[in-house]
This record gives sequence, C-alpha cells and structure tokens, in this order.
Amino acid sequence: MTVEYDLIIKNGMILTLDPGDTIIENGMIGIKKDRIAHVGRIVEGPGQALKVIDAKGGIILPGLVNAHTHAAMSLFRGLADDLPLMDWLNHYIFPAEAKMDADFVYTGTLLACAEMILSGTTTFCDMYLFEDETAKAAKQAGMRCLAGEVLYDFPSPNYGSIENGFKYTRHLIDKWKNDPLISIAVEPHSPYTCSPELLQRASELAMAHNIPLVIHMAETRHEISEIREKYGRSPFAHLDHLGVLGPHVIADHCVFVDEKEMDLMARNRVKVVHNPESNMKLASGIAPIPALMKKGITVALGTDGCASNNDLDLFSEMDTAAKLHKIAAMDPTVMDARSVLKMATLNGAKALGMEKITGSLEIGKKADVIVVNTNKPHLTPLYNPFSHLVYAAKGSDVVHSIINGRVVMENRTLLTLDLEEVMEKAWEKAIAVKTWIA
Amino acid sequence: MTVEYDLIIKNGMILTLDPGDTIIENGMIGIKKDRIAHVGRIVEGPGQALKVIDAKGGIILPGLVNAHTHAAMSLFRGLADDLPLMDWLNHYIFPAEAKMDADFVYTGTLLACAEMILSGTTTFCDMYLFEDETAKAAKQAGMRCLAGEVLYDFPSPNYGSIENGFKYTRHLIDKWKNDPLISIAVEPHSPYTCSPELLQRASELAMAHNIPLVIHMAETRHEISEIREKYGRSPFAHLDHLGVLGPHVIADHCVFVDEKEMDLMARNRVKVVHNPESNMKLASGIAPIPALMKKGITVALGTDGCASNNDLDLFSEMDTAAKLHKIAAMDPTVMDARSVLKMATLNGAKALGMEKITGSLEIGKKADVIVVNTNKPHLTPLYNPFSHLVYAAKGSDVVHSIINGRVVMENRTLLTLDLEEVMEKAWEKAIAVKTWIA
Repeated sequence: MTVEYDLIIKNGMILTLDPGDTIIENGMIGIKKDRIAHVGRIVEGPGQALKVIDAKGGIILPGLVNAHTHAAMSLFRGLADDLPLMDWLNHYIFPAEAKMDADFVYTGTLLACAEMILSGTTTFCDMYLFEDETAKAAKQAGMRCLAGEVLYDFPSPNYGSIENGFKYTRHLIDKWKNDPLISIAVEPHSPYTCSPELLQRASELAMAHNIPLVIHMAETRHEISEIREKYGRSPFAHLDHLGVLGPHVIADHCVFVDEKEMDLMARNRVKVVHNPESNMKLASGIAPIPALMKKGITVALGTDGCASNNDLDLFSEMDTAAKLHKIAAMDPTVMDARSVLKMATLNGAKALGMEKITGSLEIGKKADVIVVNTNKPHLTPLYNPFSHLVYAAKGSDVVHSIINGRVVMENRTLLTLDLEEVMEKAWEKAIAVKTWIA
Repeated sequence: MTVEYDLIIKNGMILTLDPGDTIIENGMIGIKKDRIAHVGRIVEGPGQALKVIDAKGGIILPGLVNAHTHAAMSLFRGLADDLPLMDWLNHYIFPAEAKMDADFVYTGTLLACAEMILSGTTTFCDMYLFEDETAKAAKQAGMRCLAGEVLYDFPSPNYGSIENGFKYTRHLIDKWKNDPLISIAVEPHSPYTCSPELLQRASELAMAHNIPLVIHMAETRHEISEIREKYGRSPFAHLDHLGVLGPHVIADHCVFVDEKEMDLMARNRVKVVHNPESNMKLASGIAPIPALMKKGITVALGTDGCASNNDLDLFSEMDTAAKLHKIAAMDPTVMDARSVLKMATLNGAKALGMEKITGSLEIGKKADVIVVNTNKPHLTPLYNPFSHLVYAAKGSDVVHSIINGRVVMENRTLLTLDLEEVMEKAWEKAIAVKTWIA
C-alpha cells in the first residue's frame, strides 16, 4: 500500500490566509515531502500518512514571518534599557559589537531561532555581522531565513573594508544559492551610514542576482535632517535619485515618510517592514502604516533585534501593532485583527519575495505551518480566531511547528536544537559581554 | 522537632520591592501560615519546613496586582473588536449584559481567575454586576480580590433599582467583612452614568466603612464634554465640588486630566489605575501617567475587562505601559522597567489600600509570591531582572504562585480550580451569548 502523505495535521480550525481568507472549521493539511498537497476537509484512509499530528481544538495557520531582525542580538537583551539612543549605542551596543566574533553570532542566532520557533515564527529576515553564521544557525534550527551581511562605510569587525564586505556578500550569494531554507539579500545598513556609491553598488549587485536589497530607512527624526543636510533630499528621494528604489527594496522602519515619499514608495513597489515595539521602546516615532497600506504598499511585520524590543515574539508584536495605530489615529476600527495577522504571514512572505513558497496554506506551497492550542483559559471561549490570535494568544500557545515539511517543534519540544546546550553557550557569551562593556 | 516554616521558596533571585528595592541573588522566603516570616539568605535546617519549592534559576517576586478589571467579561473576549465604541457597546456588550445572570458572572470570574493566576496575578480589583459571585469565585480560586457592585442611575440586571444597589452593596460589605481574601469597595460606575446624589451617597457609604470608592474617571474625550456641559466642570472638579474626592477614591483610566485636575488629584491623594492596552484598543487616548507620577500620585496598573484588551496578562500590560509612554513623550528614558514593575506590584497594593498586606516581599506581610522561570531562550542570558520581567517575560513564564500562604499554582498546574471543568462551563455560556446578540 502506498502512503499518500508524509505528514498530516488534522482536527483543527484552518486559517488558510489564501486569497479568499478561507477558514476550514475542522480540516486537514496533507504534506508530501516539503510541500502542501492537501488543504481542506478531513479525508480518512488507512496508512494514509507516515505521521499524523492531532491539532484537536487548535488553530492551524501559516508560520509567522519576522521580516526584520538582528537575531544574534538576543545575547544583548536587557544589557541596557531606558537610555537615550546615543548612550545606548555608544556605551553598550557598539563597544560590544566591536568585540564580537563568528561564534558569538552563531550562538546568538541559535538562541534567537529557539525563541522564534517556540513563538510561532518559521521565516525571518536578518541583518547583522558574520551572516554566514546566521545562515548556518538558521539551517541548523531548520528555519527559513533571508540573511545578509550589513554593509556600511566604516570598517566592519567581520570583513574589514567595504571591498571585503562586497566580497563576503558575493560569497554568501554563491554559497547558499541552492539551499532550500536559506536565501541571501544585499544589505546596506542605511542612507546615513552608506555612501551613495555603496548604495548604488549594493543595488546593482542585488539586481544582478535578482535578490532583495534590505535597508533601514527613515527610522528617526535625526536621520531625516542628516540626510536632508547632506544630500538636500528626504531619504527615499535620495535613494530614488541614486536609482536604487525598486520592487527589490525592503525598507525597514519607515517611521518618517511624508505623502510625497509614500507615493514614491508605492510607484516603485518598495516593501515596508514595520517594527512597532522597537520604534516605541527607542522612542523613534510611529510609522504611518495605515496610510502606507492605503497606498497599496506591502507592509510586513518585524521585531527588530531584541536589544530594542526585547523579544522576538510576533504575537505580542501583532497585538502592539493593532493597538498602536488605533491610538495614533484615535480610531478603534484602524488595523483590524485580520489585516494584522496578514501582515505577519502573507505580507511578510510578499515583502521578502517568498509569496510563492510561504505565507499561506495553499496546495503547492512549502509546508510552513504552526498550530496554536486554544484549549487554555485565555483563549476560551472562541468567537473569532483572528481576534484571538492578535489580541489574546501568546507565542507560548504555539504547540507544533512545521518548516519546509519538517516538524521542528512538537508539543513545545524543539526537535532541531539541544535547548539546554544553546542556553549554556549563551550564558558563556554573556560573561564575555560583561567584560567588553565594563 | 518543631517545623519552623509551613512553606519555603528558595534558590531564586528575590526581588523584594521593599523600600530599598533589595535584590537577594540566591535567597529564601520562609512562610508561616499566611505570612512571610523570612526574606533573605538561605538558612538550612533539617525538617525546617512542611513544603519546599525550589525556584532554582528563577526570579521570586511579589504577586502582581491587577488594579482594574471586569473579570467576568472574559466570556465576551473576541466577541466583537475593531469597532467604534458605541457600536461595540450598543450591539454587543450591552445586549449581552442585559441577559446575564449570577451563574454567568461566577463562571466568567472563575475563568478569569484561572487566566490571572496562570499569568502571575495574585490580587485584583473588580467592578461588575452580581459581584457576590465574583467574590465567591475569587475565593474559590484562592485569589485576593477587592470587589464591588457597579452602581448607576439606570436599572441593573442584578439588583434593579438604585435603592437595591445600595442594599446589595451593604450586604456585600457585611457578608465579606472578615474574609482573609475578599474585601469590598463601593463602586459607582462614572460621573456620566451616576447622578451627583448617587456619587455622594456612595462616597458616604465608603467613608462610613473606611473602604475604597472605585470609579471610572475621564476615560474618553466625549465624557469630558458631557460632564462639562451638564455640570460646568471637569470630571475631577465635579467630584471635588460634590465633596467626593479623597484618599479613598480609586480612579480608573484618567486619560483626560489637565494640570489643574492633576493638582486636585494630588492634593486629595486620589489613586489612579492606568489601563494602557484598553485605552489603546478602544482608541480612548493616552493617560498622562509620567506627569501624574511626578505629582507624587500613586499609579497602579490594570488590564480592564478582557473584552477591550483582550487578556488579563499584566506582563504584556507592563511591556505596553513602558513603551507607550516612551513613544508618547518621544523619550526612551520615560517609564523605566523598575518603575513599571513597581506599578504592577507595590503601587497596585497602595492604590487598593492593601500596602500593609501585599505588594512586596517583607516580613509580616501576607505571602503573595510568584516565581518566574528564566531558564528559557527568551530570558537567557539575564543581565537585569527588571528589564526581563517588563520587556521579555510572558505571563506563561510564571511557574509557581502562592497567595495568602497557599500554593495556588505549582509547576503551572492550578491547584484550586478544575481547569477543564471551568473551560467547559465557559463554552456553555458562550453558546448562550451568541443567541443573545443574534
């Protein structure tokens, strides 16, 4: 007898996030190898699958997409908080980063992946140093990752000169080009840390390989005046002038963008990643997300690094995003739960150029699936699954996670990492960090 | 051999929240009957205690105080969201509340208590209908509760006339006066739903019994203009004019208060309860909490009812409070983690008039203690316990809870309630709710 599926997940309420936002009350997902082969009613059959996950009473949904983070900064979480931005950067983050090495980033990323899987994230986009280690750690954890080495005008603790930065990036592109989980982006840090030449060269490299360009944009008020002073333009007009804007651009933050820039972004089909908790904690500002969405711009959700958040939990990020824009607009109808869940799933995939492989539960897509256990007092009773996921569920309610068809967490046990070992190594790194900033 | 303690909690980092904010790195709490008898270094002895809880690697802190909620509204969570306030109230909440009965409130409060204990809350202040049921359910769950029947000008589904409302309140005061866990407040709903006579009578009753007066104050912009139109004064000036303001007043929300009102509140030693998530979700506004604190006013933290939040988790509420005021002030130093944790513990106790019995870990106080397990990827490594508790920990990280010396949760298992039975009953009520609003 032939086995029809490698894995079945059944008996839960499926939120497909397909174009019709189809909800299947008591459904089944069938997975063959790495792909979704069935989404719909439960079909019974003896010996139908090698493995069956019973999601009884739970919600089955696409794995969440964390569209902007610096994973290895998990090792700096809580190192310094409640400080003016420049104090925080100059006295804690920069001195520590100057001492970092490859193993630090590998360890920090493993720790971050553990946290992300345990809170329902299946895909993340990363920007940091030693990104080959980030990619290795993500692969080790079994996570989908768009990684890229941060590029800027000053010498890097990893690659040294700008020239070597591009060399390192080209190496990453080449090394990971056929990987099922890892893909690479070109990642100039920001318009205020990268020369026009660097930005143009980075964009050309990205376009030559048909991969994304990830960049921090318009994050603080200070940045806006700095760019205007230096180049006589707003950050997005500056990029447009350099010929760098386009659908390949993933712009993180976008807190300070005016009407004219939004039109420029829409025209160029720029993708935006919103990081509400980091923007709040660093007191950067409130990004005009409802206005960007009205322009038809794809907006994804990110946690940013967890030194400025301080976690990688997209459930709390969704909750905050929904509430922040209601209060900013003084309108409770803004950013409804369904739109916010889409931001953390399908629109995340779209922003990262992965909408054909992840972000929704549809036949033919890669199987990136999570199950939320709703049999808990804070999720009982259930009137509306979108509301529960955004306003009441926690990352810790996610019980199972499947990435690329592989079960990476079952009943809250990580199957890809030795959690105790990862945490022990993280503690060792923390001891070093304390001496670096002493 | 005599046993020295009934219960010992040891091997964790103790955040006492005592006047010196003492932290004991590897400490021990000794409990005799319902009170704390030892806070300090570990003292060994054979047969020293009837029961020992090992908090190894965890943080031991005072149980959290949810200073404003409507517990039974847990049964309305997610019933309707993202709607204009009046739609939400008129088409969902009010029609449902009109059909409610005693058993509904009892069931909803049990469900809420389960959620609160599981997320680290040990004390809550409640305002709702059928509050004798709230008190019974809290006692059943083993929680400390300040309960009070909501009073307003129109007929109540519980007591009917105003006269009966006062009668019901007096009955509550009498019934619960010697209870170790339950205490009673007089709770007129708000200045816009209560006549001047009702407010004065309520305040007199509270003062006669030396108990608090709980009231919603200045929650929405609409309320301010309504009160000004009706009485020619701001809400707090109105209460002052009626002779109702004083240290017994617990004012929930206080979103719209100006400098003059803040001085009035400070002079009268009014207590304030901040509900940031509810205020955001309903798009009410941002309460001027840093300014209120600068005036020396005691500010506590609340979740509000979970129809407008949608949870009772004070960990996420702390996180939101810290971040919301940073962005509102555009200053990352505002509302540091330590101040926010104090808001959810000691200042909560102060607001409810319970600072002699709870809110900190000090010898002689009642033993209301929780243990947070930090042996998790999102809490590893640990540089600063205040930062972790406010910015990274979740309610689900609380593993043990002791209230009034009694272990109510151990290793995340509720010991006072049959959780499956509570959830089953909640589902039954939800089926009824759906018919009420159909």
